[in-house]
Amino acid sequence: MPNWMNIIEDLVDRVTDIGSTMISSNSEQTLEEKCTRLLKNSGEATSLALSREILDDYKGLEDDDKLAFFQTLFSQFGVDETSLDEAITNWKLKPSEHLARRLHFATEPKSQDLIRQLNRAPGGTASLVRMRHDLLRLGKGSSELKSLDSDLSHLFSSWFNRGFLRLEVINWSTSAQILEKIIAYEAVHEIQGWDDLRRRVAEKDRRLYAFFHASLPFEPLIFVEVALTQETPRTIDDILAADRETLEPHEVSTAVFYSISNCQAGLRGISFGNFLIKQVVEELKRELPNLKRFITMSPVPGLRKWSESHLPLDNEQLLCEAIAQQGELLSKEFVEQYSPELNRLATHYLLEAKRSDGGPVDPVSRFHLGNGAHLERIHLWANRSQRGMSDSYGIMVNYEYDLPSIERNHESFLSDGTIKTSAQIKKLHRKKA
Amino acid sequence: MPNWMNIIEDLVDRVTDIGSTMISSNSEQTLEEKCTRLLKNSGEATSLALSREILDDYKGLEDDDKLAFFQTLFSQFGVDETSLDEAITNWKLKPSEHLARRLHFATEPKSQDLIRQLNRAPGGTASLVRMRHDLLRLGKGSSELKSLDSDLSHLFSSWFNRGFLRLEVINWSTSAQILEKIIAYEAVHEIQGWDDLRRRVAEKDRRLYAFFHASLPFEPLIFVEVALTQETPRTIDDILAADRETLEPHEVSTAVFYSISNCQAGLRGISFGNFLIKQVVEELKRELPNLKRFITMSPVPGLRKWSESHLPLDNEQLLCEAIAQQGELLSKEFVEQYSPELNRLATHYLLEAKRSDGGPVDPVSRFHLGNGAHLERIHLWANRSQRGMSDSYGIMVNYEYDLPSIERNHESFLSDGTIKTSAQIKKLHRKKA
Amino acid sequence: MPNWMNIIEDLVDRVTDIGSTMISSNSEQTLEEKCTRLLKNSGEATSLALSREILDDYKGLEDDDKLAFFQTLFSQFGVDETSLDEAITNWKLKPSEHLARRLHFATEPKSQDLIRQLNRAPGGTASLVRMRHDLLRLGKGSSELKSLDSDLSHLFSSWFNRGFLRLEVINWSTSAQILEKIIAYEAVHEIQGWDDLRRRVAEKDRRLYAFFHASLPFEPLIFVEVALTQETPRTIDDILAADRETLEPHEVSTAVFYSISNCQAGLRGISFGNFLIKQVVEELKRELPNLKRFITMSPVPGLRKWSESHLPLDNEQLLCEAIAQQGELLSKEFVEQYSPELNRLATHYLLEAKRSDGGPVDPVSRFHLGNGAHLERIHLWANRSQRGMSDSYGIMVNYEYDLPSIERNHESFLSDGTIKTSAQIKKLHRKKA
Amino acid sequence: MPNWMNIIEDLVDRVTDIGSTMISSNSEQTLEEKCTRLLKNSGEATSLALSREILDDYKGLEDDDKLAFFQTLFSQFGVDETSLDEAITNWKLKPSEHLARRLHFATEPKSQDLIRQLNRAPGGTASLVRMRHDLLRLGKGSSELKSLDSDLSHLFSSWFNRGFLRLEVINWSTSAQILEKIIAYEAVHEIQGWDDLRRRVAEKDRRLYAFFHASLPFEPLIFVEVALTQETPRTIDDILAADRETLEPHEVSTAVFYSISNCQAGLRGISFGNFLIKQVVEELKRELPNLKRFITMSPVPGLRKWSESHLPLDNEQLLCEAIAQQGELLSKEFVEQYSPELNRLATHYLLEAKRSDGGPVDPVSRFHLGNGAHLERIHLWANRSQRGMSDSYGIMVNYEYDLPSIERNHESFLSDGTIKTSAQIKKLHRKKA
Repeated sequence: MPNWMNIIEDLVDRVTDIGSTMISSNSEQTLEEKCTRLLKNSGEATSLALSREILDDYKGLEDDDKLAFFQTLFSQFGVDETSLDEAITNWKLKPSEHLARRLHFATEPKSQDLIRQLNRAPGGTASLVRMRHDLLRLGKGSSELKSLDSDLSHLFSSWFNRGFLRLEVINWSTSAQILEKIIAYEAVHEIQGWDDLRRRVAEKDRRLYAFFHASLPFEPLIFVEVALTQETPRTIDDILAADRETLEPHEVSTAVFYSISNCQAGLRGISFGNFLIKQVVEELKRELPNLKRFITMSPVPGLRKWSESHLPLDNEQLLCEAIAQQGELLSKEFVEQYSPELNRLATHYLLEAKRSDGGPVDPVSRFHLGNGAHLERIHLWANRSQRGMSDSYGIMVNYEYDLPSIERNHESFLSDGTIKTSAQIKKLHRKKA
Repeated sequence: MPNWMNIIEDLVDRVTDIGSTMISSNSEQTLEEKCTRLLKNSGEATSLALSREILDDYKGLEDDDKLAFFQTLFSQFGVDETSLDEAITNWKLKPSEHLARRLHFATEPKSQDLIRQLNRAPGGTASLVRMRHDLLRLGKGSSELKSLDSDLSHLFSSWFNRGFLRLEVINWSTSAQILEKIIAYEAVHEIQGWDDLRRRVAEKDRRLYAFFHASLPFEPLIFVEVALTQETPRTIDDILAADRETLEPHEVSTAVFYSISNCQAGLRGISFGNFLIKQVVEELKRELPNLKRFITMSPVPGLRKWSESHLPLDNEQLLCEAIAQQGELLSKEFVEQYSPELNRLATHYLLEAKRSDGGPVDPVSRFHLGNGAHLERIHLWANRSQRGMSDSYGIMVNYEYDLPSIERNHESFLSDGTIKTSAQIKKLHRKKA
Repeated sequence: MPNWMNIIEDLVDRVTDIGSTMISSNSEQTLEEKCTRLLKNSGEATSLALSREILDDYKGLEDDDKLAFFQTLFSQFGVDETSLDEAITNWKLKPSEHLARRLHFATEPKSQDLIRQLNRAPGGTASLVRMRHDLLRLGKGSSELKSLDSDLSHLFSSWFNRGFLRLEVINWSTSAQILEKIIAYEAVHEIQGWDDLRRRVAEKDRRLYAFFHASLPFEPLIFVEVALTQETPRTIDDILAADRETLEPHEVSTAVFYSISNCQAGLRGISFGNFLIKQVVEELKRELPNLKRFITMSPVPGLRKWSESHLPLDNEQLLCEAIAQQGELLSKEFVEQYSPELNRLATHYLLEAKRSDGGPVDPVSRFHLGNGAHLERIHLWANRSQRGMSDSYGIMVNYEYDLPSIERNHESFLSDGTIKTSAQIKKLHRKKA
Repeated sequence: MPNWMNIIEDLVDRVTDIGSTMISSNSEQTLEEKCTRLLKNSGEATSLALSREILDDYKGLEDDDKLAFFQTLFSQFGVDETSLDEAITNWKLKPSEHLARRLHFATEPKSQDLIRQLNRAPGGTASLVRMRHDLLRLGKGSSELKSLDSDLSHLFSSWFNRGFLRLEVINWSTSAQILEKIIAYEAVHEIQGWDDLRRRVAEKDRRLYAFFHASLPFEPLIFVEVALTQETPRTIDDILAADRETLEPHEVSTAVFYSISNCQAGLRGISFGNFLIKQVVEELKRELPNLKRFITMSPVPGLRKWSESHLPLDNEQLLCEAIAQQGELLSKEFVEQYSPELNRLATHYLLEAKRSDGGPVDPVSRFHLGNGAHLERIHLWANRSQRGMSDSYGIMVNYEYDLPSIERNHESFLSDGTIKTSAQIKKLHRKKA
């Protein structure tokens, strides 16, 4: 990681410090007053210092006060009504492209400008990402704060535009500073300390790729973990086992994406995941031209919860009762005994359980199908962890990225919700009927 | 410059190439059709490829066709009228902060989204900066295209937010690739080849600082050249002479900003210059704590043109006639003979010549006074180049950045147009009366 | 760590591979035959490949065969007797500076040239460092192999000349690859995994510096750990405790060198430790001008062993008997009860126990006194670990690097063995009498 | 170039400065006295400072005094006679491998140790390289100083061992600092300023590779310039012309090494050139797998001088007389008229003109044939520069590196001087008879 980042931060700190001495007497001002002043002020040094002060003040607030601050932002830093009325009047008078555009720009909420100003402070971007995290957390259910979030998410979409991200390989040459964040942020299959991490990033048949933004040089935004294998794995333990055999690069034929983790709660909804996968596929093909298949080893997070509330199929009634008797952890014997029913249940869930907008209930399914993958295989007894069992009876799924059909799959999934599957899944699904 | 930039660009190129093969049959589509398709499409690979195709197509256009394309962008990729009407109706029905914000976001012109999509292509940012250059060049006088420019300048302000820029020292360890751009972009005192450049960046008593953005790693956005001296220079030749004596860092007391060049015509109006100066002041103070003064050696670009059209002062009539006889280049004798008149003329111009908005006519003056500098000294016979003579009779000016009074100067200049000056200038100005 | 290292290694690998195909048929040759061939051969590609083959063959040998190989090197790759005789004859005939020099260069053992050739193979330097490790380990007691070691140590002294080393700060931005070697190589106070490491390199009041050589970019040669404190620590736990309070840089006044580890067994006797300390003192003074004192927190490794075999002082007889009754681990009460005796014992050992060459018996003492430090304080009950107790009854020592007197101390220690001490130590020592 | 280099140099400077204050009073000492003191002294700080002082003093000397210093080094810092006598006596008494080795190490001239000590000073390596340059320049003809040079060249061979060098691509991303050295050091076809340089390093069909050593990070040791072409060039102008057409990488089939420059006069005889070519061949094959041929475009530096003194062939008498009439510059007509004779002359020179040791008279020929290339073609009217004419009547030569036969060629050239040639050259040579 570049040393000049520190130097620059240091420098900006100093500029900010100068400003600080000039604005010494505002400690009694409220956050709102300071924000108002920031928008009026255009002296660089003062405004940088003021921005940092606002971000620091904010950081020190309790949740209640943060909520109050958000409400103030919403109500006091909104659209200027005079400009709005004027713009509408003008538009009504003589509608034109020109006046429509002018209406748009004239109605920018003051909060947008405020956020752009705050971003200029040292560490501003990181602070704003944390602020949005608070907003999403505290603002749940409030349509006002959802409206305020449009500001942040609008700017974040612009700032974290894919053109400004860079892909980095994370390996054993990466700094400890970043590696410990990988450990902290892994959200799917927890990393059990540095030895486990080493197995995931430093072995010849493992890869980890992350997206970074120039303003958050030590903070991965999203990362994907890849296992290089000879065949499609059947359980997640095949991949994570400490004592598995390592393959040489020339022996592998399949790349398995077994974990994708979004790192920044404050960037929720700012999507770069779909692009990440495609770029990683490219990177892998370049490095290992002998790779033939690109698949995932994915959880089915919503299966159990959905099944228990939907009693999906008459003839699954029996299964559900049997499961209820077993409790959270199913035994291998149980899974073997009920494997036809479990397979049917999973297939039904993945192919038929839909949201009101027509998309699949399962979020992982939505993500990969939306990217153009198809549903390839269902594995029982694949994730025996507590979580695997309580989420999905231990079931996992492969989605396959078959390059020539990605775009076609993507288009048909988007246009009419068609879910492409392998022949095997189709068969499972027919059986059910 | 980081090697991974190339690797990543290369990678994105490849992703884009894949997409290209999928969209093979659209060569007959018009640019407009492609743009429409891009906005509908959300498959990553295709959209990247399409974005690049659009940017490449655009690049190949003649000026007339570019103009037509801009007009299409303006008229066909504007605000969605249905959304606009609906938003106005809702707002009128029951005005609220919430609906005002919604109105703003609902009226975003489609061109904004289009530009964000285009930015994701490899080299997208650079292409868009060039596109805006064309727009400013071709759209002069068209209020429609000025309106279209709001889109680009709005996004550029967000993308080139100071929080995303980094300051870099340009010296003899910098790559030739960047150095040759410094030669090309110097706009004030032309750099006469590599030997001249060497004198400006590699000597112990010279510095050059530039701002960069992560997406344009080899393109400086703006740079400033600094001479470290023992005293205030009286002519630009004192600074640029090939045979001047080099000072040791411990001998210097004064930093002279003798040239500030904006590099990207497509970023006109996206201001980072004022911040650059302050950050460079910080950097210099850190490196050389013995520096006491920070001044500029600035041109007075509008003086001659303004004088000739305003005949400013009755008693300057004589001077103007005398000058008219001399022709473009004034002799040293002439300047000496008329020095009181020339001094008065320059003082008058700098202190009294105002635009309709009350600001000084002189753009350099506006810039430095707006940053909080004060007018320190006027030098006759200071820039004897053809351009120096034809712009300002060879007159140059020092603005001084006196740190303790910067903010005060800045505030009073902004609030009521007060121009702070040294005692010497005040005296000159009084004499006039 | 620079990426080009990998690229270059890769490249050299390829050159070597080409050579390999040209020398395909020598698998039946013995190592000796290959070495002979290497010295005759001067085709680059072949010789690189041959060098690597020799190093690979060597690596695969059992200890017995390695020993045999060393004996072959000694007996078959020694000085050329014809040249030697001729050189002596010439010199005897008419002694001169010129012929003396010629004699030296004519008598270079062939093994020197062989080692230089082997160094050119990819990874050659590292292989040779490991080879010398074997030689030191297996050759113990053999004057022949000690003689062979002159070759390696002569070349290593030249190659690892201080002019070719660079100091690096090891911190949390360092790669995991290097950090895990720090964990492995710490030889004084074992690092208990990554959390302990983090406390030693990433806290504001801790530093770790290492020397590297360009040919072993991922292998520290030696490193020193530093604690920044307000006062002289009394026990090693004060420094290593997980729950200690962290100091801000401006609060510290003392730098404590609490661990120095040589990393490469194959570089034994190639000294860079003394320079490391002085360079680190410089680095610290530059970073933290408020540092006033530079001391060590050092073990006294030879104390217990020496005491038990020397029964140093008549009136310590009692102490030794008491200790013998206590067993390996002394209790706090015991140490308090016998503190005057233990202090006297340690003082006597450090000041009076000498080797046949007049230097102190204690190796740590020899190192720091030889560097110009003086003996500052003795701490009882300072290292309660098993090892601390069995080496030195838990006693530790501060040596102080008092900059103005370093050179004087160094000179007088070297010339007549004078050991400079603090007044406190002097008093302790006098008491004894 | 790594920033830490500066930091470290800075640091070593400071350590050295401290030492300086401790050795304040030796300004009256002679260089010899200082050297003597350096060898006695082992305090690090003092010795570093003393080393720098010696190197600085040396640098300030006039040539006469440098010569005197070398003579002192030779006579006063030679082999210790007592050790030498003792070693001889021991060896004579009972000759053994052990005592032979001991004799070698006991007779190391003190100058060797002195040079190793001097190397530890900041910038020591560079100073020593310059010192050897002086020694080669001033010591010509003195067998004593040739003997002294054994010291330096012995150590340099060890320090600049290929295992410690790294290959770097020089292109338009390289720093100006290094690029201006390339301009300065080009010894075969002078680089005419930065535009010419740009054509040689930044065009798609040009490459420049250099070897660097970690201790001289901004000083290339040797570099080679490569043109990528479709066919064998016939004249050097085909390569250097400013207005030639640039080829795309996929269009090229031939790599032409058209210039190899040794940069450091002080490293004369420390050979890395042959390895450079082979490594560059590897690098090129990796980057451009479509390359089929690797040839040189080489001068024939000794042809004219040799011809004029040897009157090689009876029937060339006429040619020589004709040339004598023409003067230095031959016209195109003349070359066409005499082309059979000129071809025969060149062939004869390259194949028959030998030194007393049996090797070719032509140094370029010796270099490439010794590397395993064969003589491929002779071009008349190929280098029309003043130098090309006066060295070799404008004749140039292609040597070809045909990978499968390199080692075979190399072996047979070394063992019996066989010069491999193309059929065309063979024919030319036969014609002659």
